[in-house]
Amino acid sequence: MDIIYLDHAATTPLDKRVFAAMRPYMEEQFGNADSRYSLGRSSSLAVLAARDKIQSLIGGAGGNLYFTSCGSEANSWALKGLCAANRSKSKRIVLSAIEHPSLLKAAEDMAPFGFETELVCPDSSGIVRPQALERALEGGAAFAGVMYVNNETGVIQPVDELYDVCKKHNVFYFCDCVQAAGSLPIDGSFADGISISAHKFYGPKGVGALWLKKGAKISRLVSGGQQESGMRGGTTNVAGVVGMAEALALACEDMAESQRHIATLRKIFLAELFAAADGVRPVGDMLNRLPCNANIAFSGCRGEEIMFALDRLGVCVSTGSACSSGASKPSPVLLAMGLSEEASSCVRFTFGRENTESEAVRAAVAVAAVVRSLRNK
Amino acid sequence: MDIIYLDHAATTPLDKRVFAAMRPYMEEQFGNADSRYSLGRSSSLAVLAARDKIQSLIGGAGGNLYFTSCGSEANSWALKGLCAANRSKSKRIVLSAIEHPSLLKAAEDMAPFGFETELVCPDSSGIVRPQALERALEGGAAFAGVMYVNNETGVIQPVDELYDVCKKHNVFYFCDCVQAAGSLPIDGSFADGISISAHKFYGPKGVGALWLKKGAKISRLVSGGQQESGMRGGTTNVAGVVGMAEALALACEDMAESQRHIATLRKIFLAELFAAADGVRPVGDMLNRLPCNANIAFSGCRGEEIMFALDRLGVCVSTGSACSSGASKPSPVLLAMGLSEEASSCVRFTFGRENTESEAVRAAVAVAAVVRSLRNK
Repeated sequence: MDIIYLDHAATTPLDKRVFAAMRPYMEEQFGNADSRYSLGRSSSLAVLAARDKIQSLIGGAGGNLYFTSCGSEANSWALKGLCAANRSKSKRIVLSAIEHPSLLKAAEDMAPFGFETELVCPDSSGIVRPQALERALEGGAAFAGVMYVNNETGVIQPVDELYDVCKKHNVFYFCDCVQAAGSLPIDGSFADGISISAHKFYGPKGVGALWLKKGAKISRLVSGGQQESGMRGGTTNVAGVVGMAEALALACEDMAESQRHIATLRKIFLAELFAAADGVRPVGDMLNRLPCNANIAFSGCRGEEIMFALDRLGVCVSTGSACSSGASKPSPVLLAMGLSEEASSCVRFTFGRENTESEAVRAAVAVAAVVRSLRNK
Repeated sequence: MDIIYLDHAATTPLDKRVFAAMRPYMEEQFGNADSRYSLGRSSSLAVLAARDKIQSLIGGAGGNLYFTSCGSEANSWALKGLCAANRSKSKRIVLSAIEHPSLLKAAEDMAPFGFETELVCPDSSGIVRPQALERALEGGAAFAGVMYVNNETGVIQPVDELYDVCKKHNVFYFCDCVQAAGSLPIDGSFADGISISAHKFYGPKGVGALWLKKGAKISRLVSGGQQESGMRGGTTNVAGVVGMAEALALACEDMAESQRHIATLRKIFLAELFAAADGVRPVGDMLNRLPCNANIAFSGCRGEEIMFALDRLGVCVSTGSACSSGASKPSPVLLAMGLSEEASSCVRFTFGRENTESEAVRAAVAVAAVVRSLRNK
């Protein structure tokens, strides 16, 4: 069965060109990047080139880029490391209520060390308003985190204004760019800290990065040797960082074109879906949103049932629900936006650059059929 | 130029069979292991199989195995996470002085939270004596760490006796098995916690594991979603964990044979070297030692000079010196063993299963020539 993959916010296939760039470092060029003989220097030169490329692509040339094993490590490290290093200033953490668990849970993990967390809710369209952040910052904070793009709704946050608020209150602004990188230009000018994850933009799983503005004081999370300027231990995953750099370069190269293509796919998909099914409502702001994302509420259905039925037809989609101990709970992101029961009816469709117009049409037809059949049960 | 790679303690080439096992998860099987449709379930089944395989191979079936991004993460997590979770019991950390920086630095990183560290020195043969550990444990501890095999000398530590001492004093015993895994049988019965790293046994870089005995209380290091039972966030590196499991299985399968082969190589190498060069002294216990490791002091030479000269002849070896800001310092491990100036003259040779007898002979001839030429300068 041919698969129609519409879950690019969860992960993306590894681009063949990226795999090709990684291969030499999984074969003959296996040297440890810390070894000082030629074989090691080949690796360290590749790591250096990858670092420079990513630095230049996310516009953080003035800061420091640290390689990590994923976006979650970058997020956890940023929160825990900045809070630990700056704990004499403030023991408050301010996060939007729609942050990724790697930040929300990291904040919980700091509670035993005396840190308190305030969550800022988005409005009903999924946008975190600068005024709401400002109210939360009035008590000061060691760390403020509002992501660039939400993973469930694709809604783009007003990062420039959010950063202004943080600067006014002299609070470190961290912006999780895991969902944005590869789809939107990233620029070190809109935050004090940024995280990215390679597998979200057709790179390999198991590699990410944390960028920090110059002079940011942070404690180590993964301790170790001299890697990453002594700030993150562990033998460098050479193939991984080479792949991440190549993937980001490719994504940035044809960003405009692929985002246009993806926007067309979503347009076709939604038009077909609205024509073929009733009781269908897009959730979240539709203007300030990545072109790839459609999060749809289906009245009278459970998102999970739709997801499983679509899987049987070869269509991969996601619900925001977290499955814990067999029971699924509605998405905390949608609940924070004010949805109640409707949250359980939502399905997230996220398109990618390799999807075709025909796939968009076939997916919409499949969704309409599934929803019709579930409602008639 | 053909390379003779004798630095297997730093990293190993990825086994072709391991690469083959990983490839499907870098190509068509790209699903996120947390996704609940078929493509995701293929990934989660592969992760499950990898976990079971590794659990059974390191003999920790009764405990919990967590995937990490490397040995340094596993070590740092164990130390920081166990200390944080058990800080009400004791704020003392006991480590051997020859531990890896990922433990030594992690202990330093806990100092701001009120933790104190006591280092236990090995004897002159590089062995950490149970009596020495016992003296250090008299004040109690939240965490004790003595590695299974030292990375610079290959000396095997008396882990059973060390564990007995820890049990007697009711202290958690953590055993860094990064250098041992793949070369010695690992068995969850000799420690409360164990770390391994795939790239040390012909697996990929960027993946490791932490095994903990059942009931061990640990705080998270990398926070996030439901991955690793909610204890370690981040999208699972599917290809990585599949590769680690395959690599460990292969290493365990022909462990006896390859260790015999490697022991022969070292024997040939040392015999040739001793015949061809004077002023050559093996450092550290030669009986309780991995067959792969020869750490040699060359009187009248600097290890670094030998390493660079051998590199020009295509022979890859290592010195224990850490290069910081251009100047190299002698190995802290050798200094802890009581060596002084001689430490700067040491070179580490670590053989691997793909090395040949001819390589062992040629390497010895090259070393003797290099040493002769350096002494005559």
